[in-house]
Amino acid sequence: MTDFLFKRMTLIGIGLLGSSISLAARQKGLVEHIAVHTRSDATLARAEELGLGDSYHKDVAESVKDADFVVVCTPVGVCGTVAKAIAPHLKEGAIITDVGSVKMSIIRQMQPHLPAHVHFVPGHPIAGTEESGPDAGFAELFINRWCILTPPEGTDEGAIEKVKTFWSTVGSNVELMDAHHHDNVLAITSHLPHLIAYNIVGTASDLEMVTNSEVIKYSAGGFRDFTRIAASDPTMWRDVFLHNKEAALEMLGRFTEDLTALQRAIRWGDGDALFDLFSRTRSIRRSIIDAGQEIAASDFGRHLK
Amino acid sequence: MTDFLFKRMTLIGIGLLGSSISLAARQKGLVEHIAVHTRSDATLARAEELGLGDSYHKDVAESVKDADFVVVCTPVGVCGTVAKAIAPHLKEGAIITDVGSVKMSIIRQMQPHLPAHVHFVPGHPIAGTEESGPDAGFAELFINRWCILTPPEGTDEGAIEKVKTFWSTVGSNVELMDAHHHDNVLAITSHLPHLIAYNIVGTASDLEMVTNSEVIKYSAGGFRDFTRIAASDPTMWRDVFLHNKEAALEMLGRFTEDLTALQRAIRWGDGDALFDLFSRTRSIRRSIIDAGQEIAASDFGRHLK
Ligand SMILES: NC(=O)c1ccc[n+]([C@@H]2O[C@H](COP(=O)([O-])OP(=O)(O)OC[C@H]3O[C@@H](n4cnc5c(N)ncnc54)[C@H](OP(=O)(O)O)[C@@H]3O)[C@@H](O)[C@H]2O)c1
Ligand SMILES: NC(=O)c1ccc[n+]([C@@H]2O[C@H](COP(=O)([O-])OP(=O)(O)OC[C@H]3O[C@@H](n4cnc5c(N)ncnc54)[C@H](OP(=O)(O)O)[C@@H]3O)[C@@H](O)[C@H]2O)c1
Repeated sequence: MTDFLFKRMTLIGIGLLGSSISLAARQKGLVEHIAVHTRSDATLARAEELGLGDSYHKDVAESVKDADFVVVCTPVGVCGTVAKAIAPHLKEGAIITDVGSVKMSIIRQMQPHLPAHVHFVPGHPIAGTEESGPDAGFAELFINRWCILTPPEGTDEGAIEKVKTFWSTVGSNVELMDAHHHDNVLAITSHLPHLIAYNIVGTASDLEMVTNSEVIKYSAGGFRDFTRIAASDPTMWRDVFLHNKEAALEMLGRFTEDLTALQRAIRWGDGDALFDLFSRTRSIRRSIIDAGQEIAASDFGRHLK
Repeated sequence: MTDFLFKRMTLIGIGLLGSSISLAARQKGLVEHIAVHTRSDATLARAEELGLGDSYHKDVAESVKDADFVVVCTPVGVCGTVAKAIAPHLKEGAIITDVGSVKMSIIRQMQPHLPAHVHFVPGHPIAGTEESGPDAGFAELFINRWCILTPPEGTDEGAIEKVKTFWSTVGSNVELMDAHHHDNVLAITSHLPHLIAYNIVGTASDLEMVTNSEVIKYSAGGFRDFTRIAASDPTMWRDVFLHNKEAALEMLGRFTEDLTALQRAIRWGDGDALFDLFSRTRSIRRSIIDAGQEIAASDFGRHLK
């Protein structure tokens, strides 16, 4: 039985990402044993009910014992604490990775704690939904999605290769990237969209001239598209903004500048400026569909039922 | 054969809305004859190929002759011109309606031209997709969607009833509303979301530190949700903002204010403020699903293939 990529994988955190990794790794026969740790008794018990692991550990130190692959699937803000707690118990040559949505901060938080005899390969699968918790996971989450790895300079090539193989086997396309660049790319493709979605839903909830029930009732005019990502986990997203502050503020600044120009065009009735922008943005969706990152169904297939 | 609601319906403009109305009205046996007018020869020919009418008219005056129901399905900005052109040719007792996304301006544009012997019942089906043109239509578009009517005070009750029956027969729930209130409600539920979506796609296209191909590649992190509505028709949306200026600017002002507060929370690391907003917005999506205005599938069912 030597065709497992890893003998023992430990998942620290077993929410949407942790449970999806468990299901996908099992389906592909990538690991022999899956050890699961999470913070709360309730989630650990639920993970066990769902059969997401082979062993379940309340104690994080115990969970990583003998693991040759550790995947940290907690919110970004606790990765430093997790690294500190597991560091003394990591086996020689173990590979440590994570799935956090920011990468510079993860490296800053985790690397100082990790011993020299382990390999740290930070990662971020660009795959998710608005759901969270161990029930939300599914094995297909990573299929045809990108997974970005941001190993610091000097990281063992063999370790990087193994992490690459793990992600490509569960269906992802793997890309190596500088952590700083990752944080800029994700600030525009993910963090700013979430911020804006949260914000417009907040603005809509606070109006005195339009009631919440009217907003809900007439949401099919466009608003409802934003509510999907504004239903994402608050803890996860708080941590993302606290830990990718510079890039998020930079993108937000540009967005606001552009929005101010648009506001001016509306105020002065500059139809050409409006038409210009509204035409320029059309082709992007086509490209995303062509790149296999979006379903082609018009209106997200909402009318297909 | 007296069970048709209208003997002769004229559609002025035969894009997404016009063609959907044609297909739905036909499917439900609501009208005996459908006369189609549109601006361009190409679209008129395509409508004929698709069999969307019983007669096709290059001349708008001719198209409304003998019509007892006229539905204006052009962009908002040309409704005044259309009203002026058809006015002298409208038959006594004809009912005129429209589907424009703003209502105060439509009334201001059309009403002065319409003769006293016709009934004007402005309307707006809150139903659409990002597609446009006569090929985009489908009979089910209006099912389980709201249609808002904003008849000016004193409008004939019988005429309002007939328009109501038309929309409810094609599957919509009909609501009467003051035109000014309509424009506020739609400014937040539809116009502002489109503006923001167009804007973020514009911002993302203009970055020098992140390439367009990176934005496209990694769009699954949230960005792609915005590109759907940013792929909507530029002419239609230019007209919406030119014709619902006050309400759009008001909602935009509130949105920007809230976004500035969020920006401040990020800058100062105020995790509680972020967590607070991010929690508050979660329940809205649930309500929209419960109200039957959204599909319950997680991630819009993108993983269901
Ligand atoms: N959701 C997405 O779309 C997405 C996509 C890509 C990457 N990510 C990244 O993936 C990570 C996890 O996200 P998720 O969506 O899987 O979150 P989730 O469903 O909310 O699950 C989070 C898990 O982390 C656990 N946890 C929280 N604090 C912990 C601590 N101090 N020690 C140990 N475990 C702790 C939770 O445990 P309890 O339930 O026991 O409290 C839970 O098992 C985040 O870093 C996020 O940035 C998310
Ligand atoms: N799309 C939505 O989601 C949605 C939802 C609710 C309401 N609405 C409203 O519905 C209306 C039509 O939207 P749509 O999506 O159906 O647009 P569309 O697919 O772009 O079709 C517009 C139609 O209007 C015609 N037209 C343009 N200028 C004209 C003129 N001067 N005289 C006569 N016909 C003219 C076009 O003709 P040619 O092709 O011949 O140039 C085309 O047939 C707009 O007022 C919009 O606000 C749209």
